[in-house]
Amino acid sequence: MSSDSSRRRWLKYSAAVGGLLTGCTPNTNQPPGQEEDVVNLLGRVVSKYGERSPDQKITRLPGTNKHLEASSSLTPLAQTMGIITPSALHFERHHAGIPTLQEAGYELLLHGLVAEPLTFTLNDLRSFPSASQINFVECSGNSGREWSAKVSADVQTGFGLASCSEWTGVKLSSLLQEAGLKPAGKWVIAEGADACRMHRSIPIDKALKDILVAYGQNGEALRPEQGYPLRLIVPGWEGNVCVKWLRQLKVTAEPLASREETSKYTDMMPNGKARQYTFDMEAKSVITAPSGGQRILKRGYVEITGLAWTGKGRIDAVEITTDSGKSWQRAKLQEPRLANAFTRFRFDWMWDGLATQIASRAVDETGYVQPSRDSLLAVRGANSHYHFNGIKVWQVGAEGSVTHVEA
Amino acid sequence: MSSDSSRRRWLKYSAAVGGLLTGCTPNTNQPPGQEEDVVNLLGRVVSKYGERSPDQKITRLPGTNKHLEASSSLTPLAQTMGIITPSALHFERHHAGIPTLQEAGYELLLHGLVAEPLTFTLNDLRSFPSASQINFVECSGNSGREWSAKVSADVQTGFGLASCSEWTGVKLSSLLQEAGLKPAGKWVIAEGADACRMHRSIPIDKALKDILVAYGQNGEALRPEQGYPLRLIVPGWEGNVCVKWLRQLKVTAEPLASREETSKYTDMMPNGKARQYTFDMEAKSVITAPSGGQRILKRGYVEITGLAWTGKGRIDAVEITTDSGKSWQRAKLQEPRLANAFTRFRFDWMWDGLATQIASRAVDETGYVQPSRDSLLAVRGANSHYHFNGIKVWQVGAEGSVTHVEA
Repeated sequence: MSSDSSRRRWLKYSAAVGGLLTGCTPNTNQPPGQEEDVVNLLGRVVSKYGERSPDQKITRLPGTNKHLEASSSLTPLAQTMGIITPSALHFERHHAGIPTLQEAGYELLLHGLVAEPLTFTLNDLRSFPSASQINFVECSGNSGREWSAKVSADVQTGFGLASCSEWTGVKLSSLLQEAGLKPAGKWVIAEGADACRMHRSIPIDKALKDILVAYGQNGEALRPEQGYPLRLIVPGWEGNVCVKWLRQLKVTAEPLASREETSKYTDMMPNGKARQYTFDMEAKSVITAPSGGQRILKRGYVEITGLAWTGKGRIDAVEITTDSGKSWQRAKLQEPRLANAFTRFRFDWMWDGLATQIASRAVDETGYVQPSRDSLLAVRGANSHYHFNGIKVWQVGAEGSVTHVEA
Repeated sequence: MSSDSSRRRWLKYSAAVGGLLTGCTPNTNQPPGQEEDVVNLLGRVVSKYGERSPDQKITRLPGTNKHLEASSSLTPLAQTMGIITPSALHFERHHAGIPTLQEAGYELLLHGLVAEPLTFTLNDLRSFPSASQINFVECSGNSGREWSAKVSADVQTGFGLASCSEWTGVKLSSLLQEAGLKPAGKWVIAEGADACRMHRSIPIDKALKDILVAYGQNGEALRPEQGYPLRLIVPGWEGNVCVKWLRQLKVTAEPLASREETSKYTDMMPNGKARQYTFDMEAKSVITAPSGGQRILKRGYVEITGLAWTGKGRIDAVEITTDSGKSWQRAKLQEPRLANAFTRFRFDWMWDGLATQIASRAVDETGYVQPSRDSLLAVRGANSHYHFNGIKVWQVGAEGSVTHVEA
């Protein structure tokens, strides 16, 4: 900030304002540019559905898959603010592209071990009691690169398969009650209407607890890439079970053991056995600023901020190190801290201008502490692709550069 | 919902799926239409910045002003869900249109009764400690029509000048501290960069308490119509003081008594004197469904839902009448209930199919109870245009129609 030219600017500015409030003439042909030159011209009119400023360029980043239909796009978490992810920037993960669906004629089928198979239109679903909750969705493949020696260089690439929205819909338990769940029903197979019919098995306890059949996201209908018109929101569980374009729910006695539950979305342990049905996303955090690829402009005050989340409920604490792990101090947490939602943390740091390493670690309400990458690999080995939740370390250079730390 | 044709549909559906997961071929020329016909075709690919489904048509509604630059647009609150308003549907109120501004070169001037006048670029502001909070913004002219005998017929027309977002920015108190507030400074005059230089006076106590100089809304930069690149968020106070396109802050000993604080945004009482600087928005609520212009399709279970808010902190309770005011029962409130934010309420109603009147009334954490329209008019008279917060009554017809009740 500067104070030297303030008085001069103010005088110029006062002169420009001139006939305050009398100079407004209806002229909508306002040329683009700074408003100092067009101070007396009216701006643009109201609109039906707003768009962001053309000045704003942050975007999702496409993943590296060969086919963009079976790919992902990553949320720019180093640029987003607060805890709500704009729907337009919510990460994507599709296995067969985004189907083109309309609400008219769309039906959800609920069958299997129920007293009466039912189909529901969107209007049917809206006639049930509704619920809204702010939840993160995280692909269990998020940060998958961190398992390897070639760790991610920035937040978007390494952590961008996670986002957080206010979701609205009907409790899955309400629909199961309506259909009449049979005692033998222990699993619910959810299937999407995409070309590959993405499907996953969900234990009945979770289905009866807190799962939403969601038709709303951040106040309006789901976006197409988020499953329009209908998806599951399974609080705290890996994103893959939050089946999009939800077309049918089948109650069964056993899980399906589908491709997405066997060859994919399982965790190969060092002994050659795989962890399966590992649904919970464990406590995790990342410093989003300053972070890889950014630059600290000057020594002195620097706000360290980032996001923490856990599928086990609430985040209880986030601890920050600014001295390469020698000491840890508590960050401030943005209130309210919500269960299975992003929690924004902030930490006031006085940077002395010397090279150092900074990192965050999350503690959830069960007392679980986010592990270091080394501890995680010691237990899980290096064969996993999913469920990485190790601490991410950023290297701060003496010149203010911020980079990743080679594994 | 229906169960009769479920089995037949399921058989057809199973046949269509056929070679599950093997039939996916890279073909992006998917024709529009229901996916039953295109089950084996890949859908659309990932994108950088998402858009809503073309199927979705709800929009803001332009106000009735002669010039659209000095007009408003109303949020479709009967269609939005949860508590977050999509930024694209956040209400608008402009006095001279939306100026075209870029972040580059934009500066905020802070001067007047401070030790050192300062200017801040956006990057300067981002280098201060940041804060995010979910707050409603309500134009004090919202529901202005309710003062007259010709009350509004639906939620959007009558209540659409209110919205709720997660805002991010820097505390105004941080900037005042940086510039060195002088003891004589008792007011802050905030001025916008629009053609009319919208400006309002804010008491220093509020400026030091919880005002945000906001650059973020719902996770990304402010939308142009919400003040890009900078606006004030003054929690719980009338929207007009949340000055958009914020260009300067001047600390003064006295308020400005500008046009927007004298001939406008004051409340003419029955005795001919006007209430002035009436900043707080008092407790208010409205049933958004079922509401004016909607139709209840069948007797039996109907979810009554709506929004409540207060500028005095949290909503403590919302009470619902479904028998024309004879009795009132508590609605369920969506958690968390946040200070100076929308609170979503829901109420399970068994409609007997008879004509009746339904209404909601909010109680805030101070114990204040939202008044009936008659009580409000008894105290304030009928000369006001602003700050209407009376109870809104909807008439339910025996055929399921929902209409307003003539005053």
